[in-house]
Amino acid sequence: MNDRAMVQRTEQDIPDIVIRRLPLYVRTLRWLQDGGIDSVSSDQLAELIGVTAAQIRRDLSYFGKFGKQGKGYDTLHLEQTIAEILQIDREWPVALVGFGNLGAAVARYRGFGPSSFRITAIFDRNPQITGRVIDGVTVQSDHCITSEIARLGIQIGIIAVPTADAQEVADAMVAGGVQALLNYAPVVIKTPPHVQVREIDPIGALQSMTYYLDGAEMGNRK
Amino acid sequence: MNDRAMVQRTEQDIPDIVIRRLPLYVRTLRWLQDGGIDSVSSDQLAELIGVTAAQIRRDLSYFGKFGKQGKGYDTLHLEQTIAEILQIDREWPVALVGFGNLGAAVARYRGFGPSSFRITAIFDRNPQITGRVIDGVTVQSDHCITSEIARLGIQIGIIAVPTADAQEVADAMVAGGVQALLNYAPVVIKTPPHVQVREIDPIGALQSMTYYLDGAEMGNRK
Repeated sequence: MNDRAMVQRTEQDIPDIVIRRLPLYVRTLRWLQDGGIDSVSSDQLAELIGVTAAQIRRDLSYFGKFGKQGKGYDTLHLEQTIAEILQIDREWPVALVGFGNLGAAVARYRGFGPSSFRITAIFDRNPQITGRVIDGVTVQSDHCITSEIARLGIQIGIIAVPTADAQEVADAMVAGGVQALLNYAPVVIKTPPHVQVREIDPIGALQSMTYYLDGAEMGNRK
Repeated sequence: MNDRAMVQRTEQDIPDIVIRRLPLYVRTLRWLQDGGIDSVSSDQLAELIGVTAAQIRRDLSYFGKFGKQGKGYDTLHLEQTIAEILQIDREWPVALVGFGNLGAAVARYRGFGPSSFRITAIFDRNPQITGRVIDGVTVQSDHCITSEIARLGIQIGIIAVPTADAQEVADAMVAGGVQALLNYAPVVIKTPPHVQVREIDPIGALQSMTYYLDGAEMGNRK
């Protein structure tokens, strides 16, 4: 517990850009462990993550000393430390709003299973969808979003509704106590400063790559 | 055509971080147009996008003069200019590899429809899936990835296979001529420098937010 307390004290200064990289560290370190690798050099880790070794050492310097001279990082220890900093060493209940095609795909997504996140409340506005039971969770009316989220103490919400409804849904979740939103709707959500938002935007990701393509010959102008 | 030539000359200097923001401009400007709004101030645009007005003006300065004193930006003109710079003013054929749960959800995703991207080739290694026809596209064996992508001149690929197969699939697509990869597998893909990669990683996105949550009371330690 002393270790944890120490980690918590020092973590206050970690810049957001480092925090956003840390899930990649966790993923890579878990992948190494799955392959039976219990030690990794900063050069190897850098290559796997796609940054420089200097960047790795700088990132890790924010939360203490890791790696012994000539021995590299202990993959398990480093992963557990980062997981603890990110607070993903525990299970978080998550509310999913929208159970159309997209929401159903999100609920079915197998990546949540082994992760720290469990969908424990699902909401939809369509009366033909409410009442269905998905892995033990009953889809409820969107009128209940705020009250149910408050009752269950849920702090994380996923928005999988059409664009036009996304802001309203975000407001209802934030009113219930949600402080972290994963937004699948292709629209910018407005939230109070204490609420984090991340967007899942495959079209935007594709659009940020076509700039670099040798497109003149290949793409058909519209 | 002169305008286009001019845009192409100046665009060489646009930093990647600006390029990655531009899809958000396009999305926001289209959303404004859908609402019948044909002019927007940099303050309004900044608020919608979630950056400062100074950032907006700096971003737009990379590709010419926009907005008249006291009149704001013409939403249609600005959107079309940015779309042209990003080369999303045309249709791009896209190859999808993996047609399990995730790949099927990607293929069904309605966002691709009105966008610049059309899935024109689908591959899977499962013989029970190959041969199916999805919106006119026949799912082919993964043995054909490289040859089919080369034959069709496809430059954009989507990876929706299990983690263990992702690198092999990426290699096969790059060998066929793909230069832009959208990766849904939770693993870092290695590619030559001329290939762009973007990751869709909802778990990583969630993990980058829990750090900020008041978790001590709510999360159940594992």
